[in-house]
Amino acid sequence: MSFNKITPAIIKQIQKIVGESYVLYDNENLLNYGHDETEDFVYKPEIVVKPNTAKEISEILILANNELIPVTPRGAGTGLSGGALPIYGGISLSMERFNQILEIDERNLQATVEPGVINEVFQNEVKKVGLFYPPDPASKGSCFLGGNVAESSGGPKCVKYGTTKDYILNLEVVLPTGEIIYTGANTLKNSTGYNITQLMVGSEGTLGIVTKIIVRLLPNPKYNLLMLVPFRSLDEAATAVSDVFRAGFIPSALELMERDALVWVSRFVESKTVKLPDDIHAHLLIEVDGNDLDVLMREMEAIAELMTKYNVDDILFADSEAQKEELWKLRRRINEAVKSNAVSKEQDTVVPRAELPKLVRGVKDIGAKYNFKSVGYGHAGDGNLHIRIIKGDLTNEQWNGQYIKDAIAEIFILCKKLGGTISGEHGVGLIQQEYMGIVFAQKALELQKGIKKTFDPNGILNPGKMFG
Amino acid sequence: MSFNKITPAIIKQIQKIVGESYVLYDNENLLNYGHDETEDFVYKPEIVVKPNTAKEISEILILANNELIPVTPRGAGTGLSGGALPIYGGISLSMERFNQILEIDERNLQATVEPGVINEVFQNEVKKVGLFYPPDPASKGSCFLGGNVAESSGGPKCVKYGTTKDYILNLEVVLPTGEIIYTGANTLKNSTGYNITQLMVGSEGTLGIVTKIIVRLLPNPKYNLLMLVPFRSLDEAATAVSDVFRAGFIPSALELMERDALVWVSRFVESKTVKLPDDIHAHLLIEVDGNDLDVLMREMEAIAELMTKYNVDDILFADSEAQKEELWKLRRRINEAVKSNAVSKEQDTVVPRAELPKLVRGVKDIGAKYNFKSVGYGHAGDGNLHIRIIKGDLTNEQWNGQYIKDAIAEIFILCKKLGGTISGEHGVGLIQQEYMGIVFAQKALELQKGIKKTFDPNGILNPGKMFG
Repeated sequence: MSFNKITPAIIKQIQKIVGESYVLYDNENLLNYGHDETEDFVYKPEIVVKPNTAKEISEILILANNELIPVTPRGAGTGLSGGALPIYGGISLSMERFNQILEIDERNLQATVEPGVINEVFQNEVKKVGLFYPPDPASKGSCFLGGNVAESSGGPKCVKYGTTKDYILNLEVVLPTGEIIYTGANTLKNSTGYNITQLMVGSEGTLGIVTKIIVRLLPNPKYNLLMLVPFRSLDEAATAVSDVFRAGFIPSALELMERDALVWVSRFVESKTVKLPDDIHAHLLIEVDGNDLDVLMREMEAIAELMTKYNVDDILFADSEAQKEELWKLRRRINEAVKSNAVSKEQDTVVPRAELPKLVRGVKDIGAKYNFKSVGYGHAGDGNLHIRIIKGDLTNEQWNGQYIKDAIAEIFILCKKLGGTISGEHGVGLIQQEYMGIVFAQKALELQKGIKKTFDPNGILNPGKMFG
Repeated sequence: MSFNKITPAIIKQIQKIVGESYVLYDNENLLNYGHDETEDFVYKPEIVVKPNTAKEISEILILANNELIPVTPRGAGTGLSGGALPIYGGISLSMERFNQILEIDERNLQATVEPGVINEVFQNEVKKVGLFYPPDPASKGSCFLGGNVAESSGGPKCVKYGTTKDYILNLEVVLPTGEIIYTGANTLKNSTGYNITQLMVGSEGTLGIVTKIIVRLLPNPKYNLLMLVPFRSLDEAATAVSDVFRAGFIPSALELMERDALVWVSRFVESKTVKLPDDIHAHLLIEVDGNDLDVLMREMEAIAELMTKYNVDDILFADSEAQKEELWKLRRRINEAVKSNAVSKEQDTVVPRAELPKLVRGVKDIGAKYNFKSVGYGHAGDGNLHIRIIKGDLTNEQWNGQYIKDAIAEIFILCKKLGGTISGEHGVGLIQQEYMGIVFAQKALELQKGIKKTFDPNGILNPGKMFG
């Protein structure tokens, strides 16, 4: 791809559109906006622009499209696949000023929000009126809803409630050619035209810039109960997962944590409740929610009973909100803890849930072959297991070269063989694109490139992502 | 669009692909395959072809693409928007031989089915192993799952469980250029590439021919309860709908039936239980389902209590499976009953549910202006109201010309104004395409046409649908 550099004249034009104080090009800012949470990548943009309206974005994109300047949209920078990295320089288009909850429509159980609203801020606001927005990435305290839309993000609750895509009814989008459109309608059902709303969700900022998000909401369930089940083998923990669903239960969270994940996070988050005896190799964290406490108690008992067919240690039933919060904190901070303890690469593997045992065994076998350790954790109920490959004794050459890529490719080939794919909720972004050929036929990739071309004929939006 | 006619030589080639007995061109068959359930349209194909494998379809499409022969895929012919009408002649590609349930995967709560499987046959099969496939169009006894995918069909259960699109994980598709691809993976979560699975769902056979469908299933809820609430005004019935959700309940069905709908269907289906006193102008049919009968009883009582704030007559609580079946039969056969009683056109309007009162009032106002009666019924919980406009005293010229189109356009403009759109679950097909400009910006339509061109460069698949 061949783009032009940003000239002082172009900067002046952009300053005119958004105001001088919202165009940054000092080195510190360029560095800040040049990385996200993906490994240690840094790709500095040439300028950072912080628009405030769809109209401003439209004017910026028309200019960028005419001048062939790459534009990389950016949310909170919490992404794990490199979606916000401006790898061709150009403009980092920060959506941070789109931070308004425009309407919470209690009559229709819907809301209209801007993409720069923080996920948890929004969750808390709707909770105040008895409503519920389920998608809850581990980074919910800082990630933006717009980023969630871009990556079709998930989180623990998604096993019962579905991912971001299942809550997006309609989007206001600025196209790379400058037009501002709505993709659908504010309705629960819609059979009118191609589903360009869902085409936009998960498109990683490569097709348009989302400026308004219309989401559906649910009534907030009144109660939840949480338990932590210690297993003596990873294999048994992975096997137990599908028993729960097959018995007719749909928990509101079913998370798996391999031993090392809890070891590392325990150094990070003080825990009074979680014990890690030597013979415990994995835990399942299981939550149920609903409006009837007796029913939930019975569900918890029945699920606990299902677990006893495996060789489990004593099950911990959280007995207070504080204890629940502690357990969730442990789970949510694993990523951070593992990252800070070891050089690692995270894979967002996903398979049909009953294939999890085969996936966890297969990953260990691939690790033995390539001489790396790995730690697995994540949304086992969805079959979505985050696998952190640890550098350990691998050489820099192995770690940065074809050697580790071959190992990762083997993991993804295994996912594909099991009916799965290479990303459950983090997106393809920069780091997974070379593996797309494992899960998509050549023609399926060509169709996606054709769609990209239809939306973005000059390829200015987030170039170098998803398809390279 | 300019297509070629099918020559005897082409027929020979197709006979070679599928076998002689699966190519039909006698007048009776051409007539049979020339209509669906949409008004009284008939567009005869030149031939009917009944392939049995994706490979056969691939060969047929390669031939049709080379020879510029239009191909219109066809399910059971129960469509209400004209999706299966071969308006340019050519091949009617019947999927009726794709009638196998290939796998019910009880471990993963998934199934792989062919598109010619009847919805209810599939529902019953999964129920045998304690599983549940919710989407249930009124025509479930005869419609094909492939047609459900093509139109993103709904049904009563969708208010709680979502429409067809929410159950489709992955599709095997034959492209108009002959390639056979999978669109996604067999996983509950997927952030890998553009969502071409959901682009295919609801695309009305214009982008590819679906040959395998991978759906997710749920545990079958053990119990359901049903009640029928008689209202003294349509307006109050429409208003009561959103109260139910706002109070925190998500019924498994919430249907509205205007008086005339029940009057007509009562002549069609013998009913011992439904009374229609003169002062009753609408009914709500409300179902709840779940695994705990006590909880459901309490929910029913609480919902009934909510209804009493309106001027309702005695609520009927169905007290047997037979009575439930009778009530559902009444609801499901309304379409047929109204059709056989009056010349009419059905509109598949959908709005955010709390806007229903404005929609029902608005439609009556438009009817007064244009001098037509209408009868409304359908999935009020979803905001999806089927409105049958009755010809009544309108002249043939009015009924077949611009006059009635202007009236329909006014209805859709109202839907749009209320945040809604022109089809909730029937699709655009032949009959709604001229109204697409009401709900989509010009550029949004162009993008959809661009996507069509990417998939189907010669425009051979179901030409004349959705965009004209």
